[in-house]
Amino acid sequence: MELLFLGTGAGIPAKHRNVSSIAIQLLQERGTTWLVDCGEATQHQILHTSIKPRRIEKIFITHLHGDHIYGLPGLLGSRSFQDGQSALTVYGPSGIKEFISVTLSVSQTHVRYPLKIVEVEEGIIFEDDTFKVECQLLEHGIPSYGYRITEKSLPGILLVDKLKEVGIKPGPIYQKIKQGEQVELENGTVINGADFVGPPKKGKVIVILGDTRICKKSIELASHADVLVHEATFAGNDEQLAYDYFHSTAKQAAEVAKRANVKQLILTHISSRYQADSIQLLVHEAKEIFEQTEVAEDLKMIPIPN
Amino acid sequence: MELLFLGTGAGIPAKHRNVSSIAIQLLQERGTTWLVDCGEATQHQILHTSIKPRRIEKIFITHLHGDHIYGLPGLLGSRSFQDGQSALTVYGPSGIKEFISVTLSVSQTHVRYPLKIVEVEEGIIFEDDTFKVECQLLEHGIPSYGYRITEKSLPGILLVDKLKEVGIKPGPIYQKIKQGEQVELENGTVINGADFVGPPKKGKVIVILGDTRICKKSIELASHADVLVHEATFAGNDEQLAYDYFHSTAKQAAEVAKRANVKQLILTHISSRYQADSIQLLVHEAKEIFEQTEVAEDLKMIPIPN
Repeated sequence: MELLFLGTGAGIPAKHRNVSSIAIQLLQERGTTWLVDCGEATQHQILHTSIKPRRIEKIFITHLHGDHIYGLPGLLGSRSFQDGQSALTVYGPSGIKEFISVTLSVSQTHVRYPLKIVEVEEGIIFEDDTFKVECQLLEHGIPSYGYRITEKSLPGILLVDKLKEVGIKPGPIYQKIKQGEQVELENGTVINGADFVGPPKKGKVIVILGDTRICKKSIELASHADVLVHEATFAGNDEQLAYDYFHSTAKQAAEVAKRANVKQLILTHISSRYQADSIQLLVHEAKEIFEQTEVAEDLKMIPIPN
Repeated sequence: MELLFLGTGAGIPAKHRNVSSIAIQLLQERGTTWLVDCGEATQHQILHTSIKPRRIEKIFITHLHGDHIYGLPGLLGSRSFQDGQSALTVYGPSGIKEFISVTLSVSQTHVRYPLKIVEVEEGIIFEDDTFKVECQLLEHGIPSYGYRITEKSLPGILLVDKLKEVGIKPGPIYQKIKQGEQVELENGTVINGADFVGPPKKGKVIVILGDTRICKKSIELASHADVLVHEATFAGNDEQLAYDYFHSTAKQAAEVAKRANVKQLILTHISSRYQADSIQLLVHEAKEIFEQTEVAEDLKMIPIPN
């Protein structure tokens, strides 16, 4: 599992920071890629990565501001043009259906794959055997969601050495044992599969927030996450500006990370007023509150450690 | 007057050719920039040029395919964010109003300048003292227009040497004479201003076509233009493909240029299947028919000679 930042700027594109999009690479986990937000030229950024548009399975939109959605019609169209055939689901606030349907229909773009658009409300919006996704409204000028992506716990590994110790040789029987079933051996002995399986491996939790002021709901949603991606549009001395524009400072992002007890904080959605040295100031300010902080850069890949 | 190509590829963006947009720099003529088409990431391309979004006065959309319009909402929004205050008019086929109004309203983008959207029909769509713009339907899968932009003839230059010969010294009187008026000199002599003004200078004519098959209407619209910008999605051996997809080959573009008797042909909207060497093949094919041909490249500036 990896996060690949496609756009880490705020509001309008700049030369070195495009508008918002984050890819969650789930190639090992489910052979697919998920996106969170899709600002203009997300498909252009993808050209500089190993991401295959046809593998994009889900796109989660945090909110409907242009810098988070204007890349959707192009990406959806190009995915079809490039022979994407598998189903794709877009999740987002009320209005996302109208945006997609009008942009595709006016441009007579007919995608040749099943495209599903889900207008979300707070709560669980997706769940299958391996993942669960919940969303939560935050505090922005328009409805803006945070997404909590939970990988379900994986079954423990088969303790092969222990099996060999008791003389059970590899074969189809291993599969049954791995599932924790009671298994009768050839000699009539019955063993408990669960005794030969290690503890389940806890799945990862990634929380990615839309634009927001610092708020309690962010802390609740991010509770004990492995990674929290939080906007940091402004530096600490612009707290009033952040409040007025419904955004956060880097310090406030760190405060949320600390109070939510997450393992790692990644700052993104950085205003173009901050460059080079002043970016380091943002990180420094945040680290004073929450040490495990780093700042996202366009095309930066951040692995989620096992 | 200059053409600055912002996107010269076909259908989907590639690393070296973005989707369609052309800037017409009219800084000397009217202190503004016009655009023809606005594919996704046109505003990103602009970041690498001297174009100021606030100076963009008019945007002409040839047709509504995504690779020609998906950059509009972002550019319109950013122009406001970057303090563009002067009026902007977008001209395009029926449907462009719905596209712009829905994309801006869903994203709650409120531009702070007068934005006018004109759904065009064939004929003259704009005219003032210095320019006239006409459009003409071509042959594409959906309504696709070509635009003929005519700079009106400029008054001749004042023949200063001739004035001095007859003893008329520089002063406010020169302005009256330049306007061709009858002017009474201090000594009572009446002169005809027109006798002291050179011949009017013919304005330039630029014709930029939307995606199209080769067709008679293109030839009519481009008649005797200084510059014709014609799509060349395919090479000559893909004529059937060009026909099937309502596009043109480079040879067909050259045929139009020749029959329209233009001065210069610029090929654009090049399929990403053609790279480096094969691009030269396209140009070579066209030049065999029409010598004054060149191929557009992203960020290439082509001056319109006086």
